[in-house]
Amino acid sequence: MATLTLNPDRLLPADPTTRAIARELYAAVRDLPIISPHGHVPPQWLADDTPFSDPTSLLITPDHYVTRMLHAHGVSLADLGVGQAEFTPEQARAAFRILCSHWKAYRGTPVKSWLESELVDVFGIDLVPSADTADQIYDAIAAKLATPEFRPRALYERLGIEFLATTDDPADDLRHHVALADDPTWDGHVAPTFRPDRYLEPATPAWNGLMDTLGEVCGIDVGTYAGWVAVMEDRRAFFKANGAVSTDHSHRDARVEPLEPAEAERLYARARAGQITVEEGHTLRRAFMFEQARMASEDGLVMTMHPAVFRNHHTPTFERFGADVGGDIPMAVEFTNAVQPMLAAFGTSPGFQVVLFTIDETVYSRELAPLAGFYPSVYIGAPWWFIDSPEAMRRYRSAVTETAGFARTSGFIDDTRAYLSIPARHDTNRRMDSAFLATLVADHRLTMDEALDTAHDLVVANPRKAFKL
Amino acid sequence: MATLTLNPDRLLPADPTTRAIARELYAAVRDLPIISPHGHVPPQWLADDTPFSDPTSLLITPDHYVTRMLHAHGVSLADLGVGQAEFTPEQARAAFRILCSHWKAYRGTPVKSWLESELVDVFGIDLVPSADTADQIYDAIAAKLATPEFRPRALYERLGIEFLATTDDPADDLRHHVALADDPTWDGHVAPTFRPDRYLEPATPAWNGLMDTLGEVCGIDVGTYAGWVAVMEDRRAFFKANGAVSTDHSHRDARVEPLEPAEAERLYARARAGQITVEEGHTLRRAFMFEQARMASEDGLVMTMHPAVFRNHHTPTFERFGADVGGDIPMAVEFTNAVQPMLAAFGTSPGFQVVLFTIDETVYSRELAPLAGFYPSVYIGAPWWFIDSPEAMRRYRSAVTETAGFARTSGFIDDTRAYLSIPARHDTNRRMDSAFLATLVADHRLTMDEALDTAHDLVVANPRKAFKL
Amino acid sequence: MATLTLNPDRLLPADPTTRAIARELYAAVRDLPIISPHGHVPPQWLADDTPFSDPTSLLITPDHYVTRMLHAHGVSLADLGVGQAEFTPEQARAAFRILCSHWKAYRGTPVKSWLESELVDVFGIDLVPSADTADQIYDAIAAKLATPEFRPRALYERLGIEFLATTDDPADDLRHHVALADDPTWDGHVAPTFRPDRYLEPATPAWNGLMDTLGEVCGIDVGTYAGWVAVMEDRRAFFKANGAVSTDHSHRDARVEPLEPAEAERLYARARAGQITVEEGHTLRRAFMFEQARMASEDGLVMTMHPAVFRNHHTPTFERFGADVGGDIPMAVEFTNAVQPMLAAFGTSPGFQVVLFTIDETVYSRELAPLAGFYPSVYIGAPWWFIDSPEAMRRYRSAVTETAGFARTSGFIDDTRAYLSIPARHDTNRRMDSAFLATLVADHRLTMDEALDTAHDLVVANPRKAFKL
Repeated sequence: MATLTLNPDRLLPADPTTRAIARELYAAVRDLPIISPHGHVPPQWLADDTPFSDPTSLLITPDHYVTRMLHAHGVSLADLGVGQAEFTPEQARAAFRILCSHWKAYRGTPVKSWLESELVDVFGIDLVPSADTADQIYDAIAAKLATPEFRPRALYERLGIEFLATTDDPADDLRHHVALADDPTWDGHVAPTFRPDRYLEPATPAWNGLMDTLGEVCGIDVGTYAGWVAVMEDRRAFFKANGAVSTDHSHRDARVEPLEPAEAERLYARARAGQITVEEGHTLRRAFMFEQARMASEDGLVMTMHPAVFRNHHTPTFERFGADVGGDIPMAVEFTNAVQPMLAAFGTSPGFQVVLFTIDETVYSRELAPLAGFYPSVYIGAPWWFIDSPEAMRRYRSAVTETAGFARTSGFIDDTRAYLSIPARHDTNRRMDSAFLATLVADHRLTMDEALDTAHDLVVANPRKAFKL
Repeated sequence: MATLTLNPDRLLPADPTTRAIARELYAAVRDLPIISPHGHVPPQWLADDTPFSDPTSLLITPDHYVTRMLHAHGVSLADLGVGQAEFTPEQARAAFRILCSHWKAYRGTPVKSWLESELVDVFGIDLVPSADTADQIYDAIAAKLATPEFRPRALYERLGIEFLATTDDPADDLRHHVALADDPTWDGHVAPTFRPDRYLEPATPAWNGLMDTLGEVCGIDVGTYAGWVAVMEDRRAFFKANGAVSTDHSHRDARVEPLEPAEAERLYARARAGQITVEEGHTLRRAFMFEQARMASEDGLVMTMHPAVFRNHHTPTFERFGADVGGDIPMAVEFTNAVQPMLAAFGTSPGFQVVLFTIDETVYSRELAPLAGFYPSVYIGAPWWFIDSPEAMRRYRSAVTETAGFARTSGFIDDTRAYLSIPARHDTNRRMDSAFLATLVADHRLTMDEALDTAHDLVVANPRKAFKL
Repeated sequence: MATLTLNPDRLLPADPTTRAIARELYAAVRDLPIISPHGHVPPQWLADDTPFSDPTSLLITPDHYVTRMLHAHGVSLADLGVGQAEFTPEQARAAFRILCSHWKAYRGTPVKSWLESELVDVFGIDLVPSADTADQIYDAIAAKLATPEFRPRALYERLGIEFLATTDDPADDLRHHVALADDPTWDGHVAPTFRPDRYLEPATPAWNGLMDTLGEVCGIDVGTYAGWVAVMEDRRAFFKANGAVSTDHSHRDARVEPLEPAEAERLYARARAGQITVEEGHTLRRAFMFEQARMASEDGLVMTMHPAVFRNHHTPTFERFGADVGGDIPMAVEFTNAVQPMLAAFGTSPGFQVVLFTIDETVYSRELAPLAGFYPSVYIGAPWWFIDSPEAMRRYRSAVTETAGFARTSGFIDDTRAYLSIPARHDTNRRMDSAFLATLVADHRLTMDEALDTAHDLVVANPRKAFKL
């Protein structure tokens, strides 16, 4: 039976000269601590430090990167535990068998390399996943998860994490963040992120109820546009007081555009009355976004935007299994016109910073690099979600560097709820940035000293600057 | 005089380590039979097995890849035989001289490599085309074409073809396919493909006449929308009974969207009355496409879509020479929104499969790979037409693999009416897929065993699965 | 202290086999004279041959490639001399220190390599720019600029320029071009370019005044559409008589579309009355563009189009510092539909030629290569402005060559007002084209003879053909 190993040179260029350079660059950054300014690890894991229950609920069920590919190969999401209130140990084991039996499906994808890294580096398993090895791997992981070394806080240490941001609802009381901050036995750094998307979509059925709740949380009347502004300012201040460094925004387009006060008030009243149209809802949402940008210029929280994804594309799957199960599909996006009103207003304000993410790679060289190459407030977000992968990372550096240099990029963002994959994801990025820099050294665009300094910056200085850490 | 040779390592990466891996992968797939599930070879050639008349009418006149480049260099299409009812042997020879004199124009294009492969591998000619060698090459080819070994059926064997799909009008009686099926001396496999584009464009002047004819062919009244549906179901069944595995669709956009029955009937009546507007025509066409998808989910014929080409861009050329002469120009395309109604309805139906082709490469990583990485019914079509070429193949694998893996891609599609170029086209793809896989082995993303298995799948398993062969 | 050197192999591929091929190709074109058919060097420099005053006003202030990156790093444009009527020698020296202190910001950008080439090759300086070396470099450059060898005409010789086009307003009297043509001591070749953008935007506030002036220059009444046409024909003839070979056009979209005469007259009258709307202004501008194309088909001046840039994106910067200071941001562009009316009318006219430039790289393989691969009048412009850089050049050749070959591309365009960077820019392109051709030789897509011939063509034949030199 084949042994699963991780080659130390993986992802480094094949050409011997370039590989030797890349090795040296990678060696210089390999062991640096992980800064993770945007992700989806539940803070409760670290606050409670409860052991993980089983391999499937940790590695498969919540990770739509893993489940969507199995779905594409004809597996029902139900069989993977998605949306299943009850999922027996037998079902969990069966789900793990399904994954291992479809191992071939992941060839050429980063999911394969992340999981392989987790097996080898985190769990010390050297079996290649297959129908034959599934149970043995499952048992080995389960045994580890039962040990103290595999509880969330111990893993935080062992995975080499220095800073970890979570993603949180504005109505959240941040009790887990507070608990961690108040815990003298905990010396990690977990920060909340303000993610107000749902409160910025006034044409959705849930909006009025959400706003009511948020108003109650703050004790502010949300009956007027001014009330909406007040409640947002209140919650942003609360998040900031509890360590937040950024706010996160994802809508169908990137447009940020103010409204005349009277028009804003009029649309807001229609929304509160449940009478706003879909188009008016977009208009009001773009004004809400402008308010967020204005607040950012004042409170200094960094904005991150990652627009233009068609959420819950397959309606029957959404109705049965809910959101975030792999059925979101990207769309083309436009930034140059969309963010112009925001940048004309705040683009050179000292306190304002915005990181622009995209899955539409066409905007890298056409729009994002030119924007970040002029505005001191604009950072180009790392390739993210579907394109958090070696080939896409190479295309990204090729597309943005010549116009914006290295310093105007965000540093790597893992954006994951797959806790154990965080080191593998950052490691992939360090390898690919080393590989890219090595090509610039090999053809004499950079000296080795410049490349070493840049490699270090990309891991340390860039995320600190982009996220004001 | 320089000798024309084909280097055995052509298209394999220059780095010695990677090339050695690529050689091994390519050697494992080089001689596998050709599966060609979409193309434009006339079935009559194989049914009648008549010798080809001359080099120009075989290699130049019908091949818009060849003629458009000469046109770009100032050659009149008339001088190449395009649209010429009478074209004398002297003119044919002169046209061949024009091609050879412009040989330089094809540098860096796949047309050069296809034609070189045909000269060397099919005709055994080692002369570099030029004004000086044109006549000698012409005579050598003409001499070969007169021999039994160069008749269409003998070539089918010699080119290594195992399955060949043609493209056929719904009104076609498929007599050539029937003749082949009934011929005990023929053991190839030639299948028709249902291509109903013209019957789905109700705002074009020809539509009513075409529908009348199709109604007569089936003996079905096409006066109502229900009649349109009935005639389509009838012809699809006829094609399927005669071996068809897929239907092929090319319109200006990818939108597939149902209409309320009353609205469908209303627009259909306007179309029959010749009163439908261009915009209404698009709306009705999108509903027609939804019907095709619904039928596909029932009869199991695979849909292939390759939208968004501006046909007959240069009006004077179209008026003088007709369609398919090199004057079609691609446009940007959108899939995520466009196919959502179709996939919400049929995306997880067991019988439904759709292969999405594009010339707009931006959708590969942004839309097609995410769609195929979730929907079990969606396959990413191979790079096609203008991008059926080495660099584009490399970009394609780089763009789609990390999100969708290898198994969700269609396998190679030659899409050609240039019969003799079929092996060279498939060979190019096998070389480029071997080259891509070799880079993944060289930087340790795949083991050699995984790469060998994948290389074989791409040639055999993928087209069989995508086209249900 | 590190010494600044230029490696002779810079930008050539790292693989030893490919590098050896690239070296040979590059050696064959390295020293060919520079043909620069589009750029922004002021003709007065050459006409007057006045010494350059100081390093900052030559290398920093007017070059928005340099200033925009410093702005992105928080430097005020005022501190770089932009828009400063008075800028003292102390300020100029301080600005140079700012550049040198931010040297790291340019890593990975072509600006770094251009400036390094200028320091080493033009000024003979081997110091790496930094806060410590800034004054020493400044003094060394200033000393050189005071010598006769560094006056504009002497540099024209030394930089190896054979043909240099400037960019000029239609109202310009071309006195500097006339002076150069009449000067028996000058044997360079400097040609004007007709750039009528401002006269084609009838909805802008300045338009009526500009048209009045232009009418006065010609002695033609511009009160009617026919007058607009007459004045344009008059000025084009004047430019052509003074050596112009091309006209240059940049608008928000690429649309070229005629109007019915009555509608053109109606919109023109509204524009003259200051009543035209923004949308009507676009409509009329597209008709004006169609007239330019019609004139081009008659007078034979080559059109160059580079549409779809959002000019002066940051309004406060524009209001304080004016245009062309780094605040222009590209947008997505569409050509296939936009230029169809123009190409249907003139696409095969013998006198008509158009070079299509883009910063939206998506159109290279999707639209521009198919257009140039069919229309004998269409040339694909070199990567330009933000994408005048090694990685983008590689992507460009990869994207367009397989569909359009090499001969349908424009040859390199430096498009610069940074006079001293012209050789470095052309050298970068020669290196990257050699590198691309070397990959085709290394994997046997081209023979060495074919590649050598192509490399020479790209430098000499292509610009001559595309610009009718």
